Amino acid sequence: MPATPVTSASNSSTTLGSPAHPRVSVLGLGAMGAVLAGTLLAAGHPTTVWNRTHGRADTLRAAGAIEATSPAEAVSAADVVIVCLFDHASVHQTLDPIATHLAGTDLVNLTTTTPEQARELAAWSETHGIHHLDGGIMSVPEMIGHAGSEILYSGSPEVFGRRQDLLAHWGASTYLGPDAGRASLEDLAILSGMYVMFAGFLHGAAMVASAGVGAVEFAGRAAPFLAAMTGGLGGLAETVDARSYAAPGQQSLDFSDLSHIVRASAEAGVSTEAVQMVQNLITRQRDAGFGTEGFARIYESITDTTSRSHR
Amino acid sequence: MPATPVTSASNSSTTLGSPAHPRVSVLGLGAMGAVLAGTLLAAGHPTTVWNRTHGRADTLRAAGAIEATSPAEAVSAADVVIVCLFDHASVHQTLDPIATHLAGTDLVNLTTTTPEQARELAAWSETHGIHHLDGGIMSVPEMIGHAGSEILYSGSPEVFGRRQDLLAHWGASTYLGPDAGRASLEDLAILSGMYVMFAGFLHGAAMVASAGVGAVEFAGRAAPFLAAMTGGLGGLAETVDARSYAAPGQQSLDFSDLSHIVRASAEAGVSTEAVQMVQNLITRQRDAGFGTEGFARIYESITDTTSRSHR
Ligand SMILES: NC(=O)c1ccc[n+]([C@@H]2O[C@H](COP(=O)([O-])OP(=O)(O)OC[C@H]3O[C@@H](n4cnc5c(N)ncnc54)[C@H](OP(=O)(O)O)[C@@H]3O)[C@@H](O)[C@H]2O)c1
Ligand SMILES: NC(=O)c1ccc[n+]([C@@H]2O[C@H](COP(=O)([O-])OP(=O)(O)OC[C@H]3O[C@@H](n4cnc5c(N)ncnc54)[C@H](OP(=O)(O)O)[C@@H]3O)[C@@H](O)[C@H]2O)c1
Repeated sequence: MPATPVTSASNSSTTLGSPAHPRVSVLGLGAMGAVLAGTLLAAGHPTTVWNRTHGRADTLRAAGAIEATSPAEAVSAADVVIVCLFDHASVHQTLDPIATHLAGTDLVNLTTTTPEQARELAAWSETHGIHHLDGGIMSVPEMIGHAGSEILYSGSPEVFGRRQDLLAHWGASTYLGPDAGRASLEDLAILSGMYVMFAGFLHGAAMVASAGVGAVEFAGRAAPFLAAMTGGLGGLAETVDARSYAAPGQQSLDFSDLSHIVRASAEAGVSTEAVQMVQNLITRQRDAGFGTEGFARIYESITDTTSRSHR
Repeated sequence: MPATPVTSASNSSTTLGSPAHPRVSVLGLGAMGAVLAGTLLAAGHPTTVWNRTHGRADTLRAAGAIEATSPAEAVSAADVVIVCLFDHASVHQTLDPIATHLAGTDLVNLTTTTPEQARELAAWSETHGIHHLDGGIMSVPEMIGHAGSEILYSGSPEVFGRRQDLLAHWGASTYLGPDAGRASLEDLAILSGMYVMFAGFLHGAAMVASAGVGAVEFAGRAAPFLAAMTGGLGGLAETVDARSYAAPGQQSLDFSDLSHIVRASAEAGVSTEAVQMVQNLITRQRDAGFGTEGFARIYESITDTTSRSHR
């Protein structure tokens, strides 16, 4: 964003908002909030911003945003309030004192929280007559507003319907239904997959390092292989949905025994915990007598938390 | 393979082998060995096969392979011996009694073993004057001989050089150097990544199931996201190779704290072990004072096995 000095709000019709450009207020100008605000500002929305610590709004102000000195001031001028703070606790610290100011407005919370916390905020909003939509951002700040950016939403269908055009400035918007916890649940579920995949890759990199192979060289072979293997996730999912673990043509749990990988990891002098995690999921099913069934059955180890506590 | 009855070896020049088509012997006709043998046979190599249990060679015999009644008989007629058995122990059970018959031949072992086991077999081969090449098959049987099939090799450079054309019938062949354990190490390292990724995906599927979302629906969003995220593995690898965890622009370990994902998993009623594994790797680095450094630093948790034993 160019740091052009702006003397005052340059366009009063924009400042007042319009059906096409409702007035937005963004609370939280961290790495993500600042980009969310900047994108809406660039799209022509009258944008008011607030951040707990001063000095993070300068670039946005230079581009035409109004900086409020308090959350109350920020939201009083807004049709839609966007919240992107650190966590659930900071959301309540910021919003609790201004609940009455928020009554009747559309509140879009993009702070990462647990599904239960999102549901709690939905109930809190309901109590105060606030229309609440929860979002899970599947992108890094650099991607917002560009190809590949996606945000999952759940909660008020009215807010999603009314604000779709606004939300679209950030990227693809997927509405997952009225359960406010659903977007967070799917967001965290997908992030689980990502973090666990990263750990598995780095585990592999640590193994080959024992033979003097660099991580970049390893990535050259492993990354395309893992990308190709994501093509198998749909098949695992079909097996899980149908619980067809005994259908023919699957790689069996017995065949998937990872003892040799655990041993090779130990022999390479690296922690075995990433592969031991998978081996434990496999072993519980084999111990329960399902060794000839398909690998996808480790899903049952994950959902059956009772069996785990015994080991 | 068509089950055309074959009265006898139909082409004696082929049976005797030729520089272009050396005689091969395949020990082990499991799901993988049978396909390896069938591919060489179809490519014109005089092919002798042996399997511990009778009856698994019928289709191959019908297509022109010779079935040997013992490993000794099988290898006495071969320039190249291919071994694809269950594990390292079964390889020694099969080869130890016929070591003298193998002297001077090229031995390609495609049985999955640990790197140490591959090195042990290399030393054993050396003792007996056998030229040993170890292979790690990065494919399922259905892929052998087709696009996307890849086999990693290490061990004797002479065997790889002499037999490259033969090996090429199975798919892309990558030679990783004279350390016989290297192909196995990379194979198992890449498979670690795959199994851990699968477990992470199924963990996510289990989380969303708590909100009634099917695994296939979840895969529709998660699989493309994970495929896209494999694009980030090269960046993680560069950071690891350079140990540039403190360079700017990285997602920090503090930011990567997975408490909320662990909590959401527990709230969804599923086992937390997949995400807790990653969280443990993160926590060890944060506890050691590196919270502001990049996520790739979990690599240090994996390679530093001393810190793990204290937790
Ligand atoms: N960055 C990403 O890649 C990304 C991706 C997806 C989702 N998200 C989510 O987006 C949210 C914000 O992330 P970020 O990257 O912008 O984080 P960040 O750069 O660390 O910014 C955190 C923001 O929260 C504010 N804050 C913290 N505690 C507060 C409190 N008690 N009261 C009021 N304000 C408080 C900070 O204000 P100060 O300036 O006063 O500290 C700052 O504006 C997080 O929930 C994150 O999980 C981020
Ligand atoms: N299938 C794959 O997708 C795949 C992929 C990559 C690598 N591999 C590796 O390839 C190797 C073979 O796999 P596979 O799928 O063909 O397995 P499989 O279908 O289970 O076949 C195992 C083979 O090993 C033989 N065997 C087992 N124990 C033996 C012993 N003590 N002495 C002699 N023969 C013995 C079996 O003979 P019997 O018929 O007498 O039992 C059979 O021929 C394994 O190391 C596997 O990890 C397989």
